[in-house]
Amino acid sequence: MTRPNPPGPNSLDALFAPRSVAILGASDDATRIGGRPLTYLRAAGFQGPIYPVNPTRDTVQGLKAHAAVADLPETPDAAILALPAAKVEEAVTALAGRGVKACVLFASGFAETGETALQARVAAIAREGGMRLVGPNCLGAFSVPGRFYASFSTVLDRGVPQQGGLSIVSQSGAFGSHLYYLARQRGLGIRHWITTGNEADVTVAEALEYFAHDPGTKVIMAYAEGFTDGDRLVAALEAARAARKPVVFMKVGRSEIGAAAAQSHTAALAGADAVCDAVLRQFGAFRAQTTEELVDIAHIACAGALPAGPKLGIVTISGGVGVLMTDAASDHGLDVAPMPQAAQAALKERLPFAGVRNPIDITAQAFNDPALLGDNLKLVLKEGGYDAVAAFLTSVPGSAANAAPVRDALEGVRRAWPDFPLVLSMLVDDPLRLEYEAMGYPVFADPSAAVAALAGARAIRAGFDRPAPPAARDAPPLPDGPLDEHAAKQVLAGAGIPVLTEHLATSADAAVAAWRSIGRPVAVKLVSPDIQHKTEVGGVVLGLNDEGAVRDAFDAILTRARAHDAAARLTGVLVSPMEGGEGCVEVLLGVQRDPVFGPVVVLGLGGVLVEVLGDVTFRRAPIDAAEARAMIGELRGAALLDGVRGRPPADKDALVQALVALSQLAAGQGARIDSIDINPFLLRPQGQGAVALDALIVRRQEGQS
Amino acid sequence: MTRPNPPGPNSLDALFAPRSVAILGASDDATRIGGRPLTYLRAAGFQGPIYPVNPTRDTVQGLKAHAAVADLPETPDAAILALPAAKVEEAVTALAGRGVKACVLFASGFAETGETALQARVAAIAREGGMRLVGPNCLGAFSVPGRFYASFSTVLDRGVPQQGGLSIVSQSGAFGSHLYYLARQRGLGIRHWITTGNEADVTVAEALEYFAHDPGTKVIMAYAEGFTDGDRLVAALEAARAARKPVVFMKVGRSEIGAAAAQSHTAALAGADAVCDAVLRQFGAFRAQTTEELVDIAHIACAGALPAGPKLGIVTISGGVGVLMTDAASDHGLDVAPMPQAAQAALKERLPFAGVRNPIDITAQAFNDPALLGDNLKLVLKEGGYDAVAAFLTSVPGSAANAAPVRDALEGVRRAWPDFPLVLSMLVDDPLRLEYEAMGYPVFADPSAAVAALAGARAIRAGFDRPAPPAARDAPPLPDGPLDEHAAKQVLAGAGIPVLTEHLATSADAAVAAWRSIGRPVAVKLVSPDIQHKTEVGGVVLGLNDEGAVRDAFDAILTRARAHDAAARLTGVLVSPMEGGEGCVEVLLGVQRDPVFGPVVVLGLGGVLVEVLGDVTFRRAPIDAAEARAMIGELRGAALLDGVRGRPPADKDALVQALVALSQLAAGQGARIDSIDINPFLLRPQGQGAVALDALIVRRQEGQS
Repeated sequence: MTRPNPPGPNSLDALFAPRSVAILGASDDATRIGGRPLTYLRAAGFQGPIYPVNPTRDTVQGLKAHAAVADLPETPDAAILALPAAKVEEAVTALAGRGVKACVLFASGFAETGETALQARVAAIAREGGMRLVGPNCLGAFSVPGRFYASFSTVLDRGVPQQGGLSIVSQSGAFGSHLYYLARQRGLGIRHWITTGNEADVTVAEALEYFAHDPGTKVIMAYAEGFTDGDRLVAALEAARAARKPVVFMKVGRSEIGAAAAQSHTAALAGADAVCDAVLRQFGAFRAQTTEELVDIAHIACAGALPAGPKLGIVTISGGVGVLMTDAASDHGLDVAPMPQAAQAALKERLPFAGVRNPIDITAQAFNDPALLGDNLKLVLKEGGYDAVAAFLTSVPGSAANAAPVRDALEGVRRAWPDFPLVLSMLVDDPLRLEYEAMGYPVFADPSAAVAALAGARAIRAGFDRPAPPAARDAPPLPDGPLDEHAAKQVLAGAGIPVLTEHLATSADAAVAAWRSIGRPVAVKLVSPDIQHKTEVGGVVLGLNDEGAVRDAFDAILTRARAHDAAARLTGVLVSPMEGGEGCVEVLLGVQRDPVFGPVVVLGLGGVLVEVLGDVTFRRAPIDAAEARAMIGELRGAALLDGVRGRPPADKDALVQALVALSQLAAGQGARIDSIDINPFLLRPQGQGAVALDALIVRRQEGQS
Repeated sequence: MTRPNPPGPNSLDALFAPRSVAILGASDDATRIGGRPLTYLRAAGFQGPIYPVNPTRDTVQGLKAHAAVADLPETPDAAILALPAAKVEEAVTALAGRGVKACVLFASGFAETGETALQARVAAIAREGGMRLVGPNCLGAFSVPGRFYASFSTVLDRGVPQQGGLSIVSQSGAFGSHLYYLARQRGLGIRHWITTGNEADVTVAEALEYFAHDPGTKVIMAYAEGFTDGDRLVAALEAARAARKPVVFMKVGRSEIGAAAAQSHTAALAGADAVCDAVLRQFGAFRAQTTEELVDIAHIACAGALPAGPKLGIVTISGGVGVLMTDAASDHGLDVAPMPQAAQAALKERLPFAGVRNPIDITAQAFNDPALLGDNLKLVLKEGGYDAVAAFLTSVPGSAANAAPVRDALEGVRRAWPDFPLVLSMLVDDPLRLEYEAMGYPVFADPSAAVAALAGARAIRAGFDRPAPPAARDAPPLPDGPLDEHAAKQVLAGAGIPVLTEHLATSADAAVAAWRSIGRPVAVKLVSPDIQHKTEVGGVVLGLNDEGAVRDAFDAILTRARAHDAAARLTGVLVSPMEGGEGCVEVLLGVQRDPVFGPVVVLGLGGVLVEVLGDVTFRRAPIDAAEARAMIGELRGAALLDGVRGRPPADKDALVQALVALSQLAAGQGARIDSIDINPFLLRPQGQGAVALDALIVRRQEGQS
């Protein structure tokens, strides 16, 4: 038995590698919830003592039964509670009192059915006793190296799991079992498995963090419906990224109706899905949309096939499927670059009918001489200059005539290139497929899925290769007093975000003087801490360029403001140069506070793109310049900033700087700010900078979530 | 042996149900290309005579061999040519001369390697002899009811195919074999299978048309890299739609780089992919993006599970997977509507812990009493009001304790609801899965794929329920002489498309008179048959509303036009009222000529959406109002027409009328028009109509493709 870390009171070691275990509600019937864990523990050869606790029997499945926790001859490291909800509180009290370090609670009938008070009491008892608690309303956990099975999932009926580096955490028990079944089907070896259910104590984020630090875990597969502990999730993802462990994540509730269903299914408050999505991407996790994609990416990650770049070589025995795979590569952002000319010529010499550019069609002739297949693949690997290669062989490697020589040829390739990201798409029976897997080839039935998996693996590798995220810097406290537009812009300017040079004028004479000093057409805008939507009260007049017009505008704006709200404090007007016009692009920048993940920065393109398509993107603050560039690239209308139809490209560098500065402001202010809106933020043509035309900062109220 | 139709010279009957067959190049070695068809024919029990032709042997695989086609004792209906390219011309000449009705040509070394002349000669010989020809460069064809196997694909080594209603046509041999393997794996019964290769004669479109009219074919799966015969494809799709036969299509080359690869792989000219895509959708085919999706939709179609509406009930034993499936439904446009209150109450009474709204979480408790599982499913089917139901059962139906009672329960459900679109998502071993398939359940491992398949089946059913597409009406010939803006607008007006009321003025006085008669600000635009891009030569002046300004504009425009091109014919100027402004939306309408599919109508949203996102949609002309509405709905920025941010909704009805009229104009003009551009076409607020502000018609030149 491997024990990765010694059990400690505040870790999950006691859960995944306990030295001894008690089973409360242990049953003699191996098919019952209380019987299965015992059966699984013994089948796997758990190496410590197992203490069935059952007051009504002398033995359980041949082991001596104990009447109560108090009667156990020693304090077990862990306990499995196969008891109905009504008996849980008493049992947890006894276990915590005895000093048990971890317990697994199967029962339903807690928060998910409204019994939140009971769940809170049980969690508090465990916490006070220093006992970690999994569940309730879960299928428990198991550890293959620990030979520890605290689960009643029927997927374990299929035999003891194969050991490996994949650890799985799932909020849902049924889905966790489903994932285990699929991983097993793929031939992926498992390390730890845990389902967190109602998460009275242990959460998906904590399990993920444990796996990130667990030396034996190489790949992490995770499923959640929502999160409560955003900081912990971020720390866990960052720890996994720093340790170069792929995290493949399924977070459901992407759609509005799906999110509503998730909300009604779990008691937990989920952050906005778009923010979750951004955080997963930002901290290097791969978010899957379907179960199949989740398992595909975990599969390729377990094989260690993480391409160092986007260049994909496609080798097929069917020109058509080469095109299909090229479409998939294009969908997923991989680069189907042509082979170097010399390599094309060399291949053409060997196979006159081959397509040698990329996709590389070695035609079915490859199978007339399987050794040639191996040689040709080696040529592509050696000379192609690719970061990854996907080879489509359809059902040919399984045909009676070809099976042995093709396997030998491909084994030779793998031996020569043991670590290269090389995946196979083929249709063969399970035993032969598992033989190829054992050789080190991830095998996918679907050629598009093979390409998509490589793209996902590439994204994970790119995440590993990024520098660590920036630390948040302190920000000076917000000024006292009201945060009107002028004050908000001063805060932004102080944070390094360019704002319009503008003059606060408290008299018509001062407004005229301001216009003179600016020396070109100006906008005049009301400043009042009590009136936020100044456009709607006639508080904005644009394009003024003579003394009389500026003077009249000053008087008219204050008169209208007074008429709108006689009690409003009127600070004066802002006089600012007119901006925008030809060659400028308007974006919106902002900060929002996510209830789970805290301050996030928002970027969107102005006008119809944000209004009609909701074309915005998020990041948890703070971010660095690379992340800001990634945000810009994610906008569907990103091409607008590159200049379309003869327009000049916009000053993206200025936008990147502003995003970084805004994110540091947001992170530094932390809980003091509820939201910031910079709309519009005007991007001038490249090299000419950018400027915030309007700004609004809303302080966070005391006690606001 | 079933023979669907008597063989006729111009049909494919001789290919799928010949009474006798010759094999040229027949080999004694059952593993060789010339040996395999004979092996397969005999294994399947082909019921007519088989004539091996091989001048070097007396017998082939125990059958008497003939030295030459001339020596055959009778004229066979069909011939299989397992000969190298160099011997094909002579053989085809002999076969055609003898009156053989169909031949299958395996050899490569024709158009795909540049030997286009040889291929053309062979095709001409066959055509003149009235012999249909499959290939060259293909894996041939087979027919399960005809017990006819004219293929050397190694997938047939796995045994005689199971008979059923699925016919498969694939341009690619390897991919056609791949599809057959997958269909077999799913337990789908096959009827006919054909790979068309270089398509010297028989094309994907013709095979599809044959299947559409073949009474035994119930579902059609098709693969192509491109099309040459657009009209035939449209006729085939429409025939299948009219016969309510689902067509599931994979057309590769979606991406730009994929299309380039396809072009280099096949000699064929492919129409623009976006147009192909529109035509497939318009004529009711489902276009799949991946192989898995292709087979998933064929799978559900073979089970006849075509939902009559979009309402989907989701039944799961895992709340989380319910959310996941809800996300998938939302992605694919299905409606996860709640169950009626009474049904919710009834289910809640039976299962207090169940989620009863939709997704319906019957929890794992369902398996404690599998009869209850059946009852609960029946309740959802009876009371839910759904068009389809997807049930997720993970691996539970395969667990030892549950397998038999769960199967009994689900068999009972299927018996009570034999035709309802009800799919299962479960993870079970192949034999049990095929048992469920035989029961009438389409089974999908992936729950998201189950939902996506139902959505695809729904789209197919919606296509069946649409009326037949409109017939093209004749259009009057285009006017003689140059088609300047004014003339173009008159053509459009004649076709029923609203154009701006405008006055052609040939003098400054006439321009002023026109402005007076309009009575509000006007635009003045150059009219010259020789200058098309009038904006670029200063030929447009906007917003004029006094006599001097109109007069100056007339002179200035003509002066600038003269300076630009002293030889240009200058007809005068158009004076038209200024249009647009608040509450109006600009779209672009157009007609393009696709080399394969002929005139197509184009709709896009004006401004940044079309410029940056390429947000346009296509249809083959003509279309009806429903199709025009579908086009509008496909625009990513469609919400812009519904009014966003307090803007009024645009007059969509006017847009629909204009699209229909434009499509009839395009279809009626047919080959006379190369393109039409109406940009912008201005939509006023709902009820206020629409108007073409600018228009350009380009005639088709003689001999243009």
